[in-house]
Amino acid sequence: MFHSPTEFIFGRDTEQQVGQTAKRYGAHRAMIVYGGGSVKRSGLLTRVETALKASGIEHVELGGITPNPTDTRVYEGIDLARKEQVDFMLAVGGGSVIDTAKAIAAGVKYDGDFWDFFCGKRTVEDALPIGVVLTIPAAGSEGSGNAVITKTDGLHKLSLRTPMWLRPKFAIMNPELTFTLPPYQTACGIADMMVHVMERYFSNTKGCELTDRMCEAVLMAIIDEAPKVMHNPQDYEARANIMWAGTLAHNGICGTGREEDWASHFMEHELSAVYGVTHGAGLTAIVPAWMTWMCRHNINKVEQFARRVMGVTPNDVEGAAPGAKPRLVALEGVRRLARFWQSMDLPTNITQLGIPKPDIDLLVDKLHENKGEFVGNYVKLDREMTREIYVMARDYSIDD
Amino acid sequence: MFHSPTEFIFGRDTEQQVGQTAKRYGAHRAMIVYGGGSVKRSGLLTRVETALKASGIEHVELGGITPNPTDTRVYEGIDLARKEQVDFMLAVGGGSVIDTAKAIAAGVKYDGDFWDFFCGKRTVEDALPIGVVLTIPAAGSEGSGNAVITKTDGLHKLSLRTPMWLRPKFAIMNPELTFTLPPYQTACGIADMMVHVMERYFSNTKGCELTDRMCEAVLMAIIDEAPKVMHNPQDYEARANIMWAGTLAHNGICGTGREEDWASHFMEHELSAVYGVTHGAGLTAIVPAWMTWMCRHNINKVEQFARRVMGVTPNDVEGAAPGAKPRLVALEGVRRLARFWQSMDLPTNITQLGIPKPDIDLLVDKLHENKGEFVGNYVKLDREMTREIYVMARDYSIDD
Repeated sequence: MFHSPTEFIFGRDTEQQVGQTAKRYGAHRAMIVYGGGSVKRSGLLTRVETALKASGIEHVELGGITPNPTDTRVYEGIDLARKEQVDFMLAVGGGSVIDTAKAIAAGVKYDGDFWDFFCGKRTVEDALPIGVVLTIPAAGSEGSGNAVITKTDGLHKLSLRTPMWLRPKFAIMNPELTFTLPPYQTACGIADMMVHVMERYFSNTKGCELTDRMCEAVLMAIIDEAPKVMHNPQDYEARANIMWAGTLAHNGICGTGREEDWASHFMEHELSAVYGVTHGAGLTAIVPAWMTWMCRHNINKVEQFARRVMGVTPNDVEGAAPGAKPRLVALEGVRRLARFWQSMDLPTNITQLGIPKPDIDLLVDKLHENKGEFVGNYVKLDREMTREIYVMARDYSIDD
Repeated sequence: MFHSPTEFIFGRDTEQQVGQTAKRYGAHRAMIVYGGGSVKRSGLLTRVETALKASGIEHVELGGITPNPTDTRVYEGIDLARKEQVDFMLAVGGGSVIDTAKAIAAGVKYDGDFWDFFCGKRTVEDALPIGVVLTIPAAGSEGSGNAVITKTDGLHKLSLRTPMWLRPKFAIMNPELTFTLPPYQTACGIADMMVHVMERYFSNTKGCELTDRMCEAVLMAIIDEAPKVMHNPQDYEARANIMWAGTLAHNGICGTGREEDWASHFMEHELSAVYGVTHGAGLTAIVPAWMTWMCRHNINKVEQFARRVMGVTPNDVEGAAPGAKPRLVALEGVRRLARFWQSMDLPTNITQLGIPKPDIDLLVDKLHENKGEFVGNYVKLDREMTREIYVMARDYSIDD
């Protein structure tokens, strides 16, 4: 099953089409959701408002959405949308903004508490249509039916996956809007999209060669293009490749026909919820340890990743005993991935995140409270295992 | 711009969902379009009819659609659809059947001659909704807005590309339905999807690294899976990979953001129109010559194809002068591709197609009559150039 109906409108100045496009999808009265001041300072918000007005669409605004967005703003948005009789949600921003707009879109149409959708009590059966003007390539939310929201009370960061209702009708993607992203945010976004692919790549489902190749293609393209973006933030082609990679990483094309993992994401969500770290940096602090642990417990795809994506060859482990080679190839792949992330100034363990003494008991407790006895699918991780991985992630080092 | 709204329903027994799915897309009275007797003999047609009936959808039938489908059957279908007040087109088959259904879907809603769309006089502005039950993975028509029809009078084989109107609403894809495809038809389908990717890969647009990688991923997966399918026609996973590859080859994901070529397809269409050859086999008779010609005129992507897809390494051209290496790498890649096709008993020149003395004057005349002064984009080919390539294709040999 693959269904990606979102209309992606890609290229320079495409935000000028936001009014006519929203109108095609039935907008009369839109709520613009956005984050910090950068969309105001850059003039983007004004351009979007002008385009809506020109197409006869009225609007209200919900600004100031922060990273790791909270239920508080969702409740506020739902009240505003009802009061103002909004019929269309327009997210101008990245994942946090889009996910807030999605939660509002579903909540407006539901009599109960929207959190029911996130804690699994109810499934979404109706929602306002959603449009996106993307400014941060990372979360892939512009082409997915998913959303992640943090409950302020108790710091539960939970995700919601819907097959269709929360998929944006359209996403306007102008790479120029990402020229001014600070290097750290650019790097975190790149890490996030890479791990979105990897959560799908690390699968035990047999016979998905084509989907494997798609995953490898997206990862290799990101690894080629990321240094260009870090070196020259105004490289249009490189920014365009990264932007499109963020969408393909998460619109389903990399997961077709297979079981997915998602353990690293869930383990990171606890870091974000408790310590408020940036999601992408939290991921790069978890994944090298997770992969190293997998070298001992399910090496198969880690070794394939090392060969096909990181280009590790038999020459790189020359002289090793034949039985030891797959493990050495796999570990060399993990090291190259960690080095790649370090080259973008991303942390590759929890200490480097600025948390030298993480409360691992708390992280493990909350993880299994939220996700149940087992987390992930590539290896189904129980409490002992997730504890081992958190401990390894605390001070993972390339030199070990 | 990327918009692939088709709902792909993939897996065993999925044809049982055809009634409820067509109903979701508004079908009340459907026309089932199909080809030869195999869908009757296999019982598929009965299963589809039963599923429609169970969902309260009436139907009429248009059977016997042949490869290289003609305008005659389209006119017949348009008359039938109007008489029977059909509101939904359901194609049960491969590209020829789907393309016929698409042409009827557009023709029914148009007062003039449907051929106007194919010869470029008019653009499609309305069409009946279309659904597909796919039985031959090859043309990719199940996920595209395109169609190819041959005009019987004068043997013009022309293609129509629409952004949206002719994209199927859904495509039901059960790999088991392809188990009984004869080896030659399986091989021709594989060739067709490979060349669909290559027409997009051979592009001069700079900075499309991600799209390059997507193309390479689909091609590598096909090259891995094709021998399994040829060896064991009932290998479900391999058939599934090939089926999905045929869709991804043509739904736009391999062409995002770039100029495409299509010269090989257009050159083949003349072979099909004049000599009635199978499209896939016609392509494998043209492409090696086209690529060899490109080694002299625009080697860039041919060399990249040789390295990244066919795995040619510097070791393979050891001892050659440095300046000669790219050309030797590229030519070795073409040879490996030709050998791969030969391993599936496909022709790699026009003589092997059973046409020892092709009327090259006629082919060149008709090609430029249909397509204008220049054909293709990777190199814009004038009459002299297409003649050279047809001559090379007449007796291309790996050993030259």
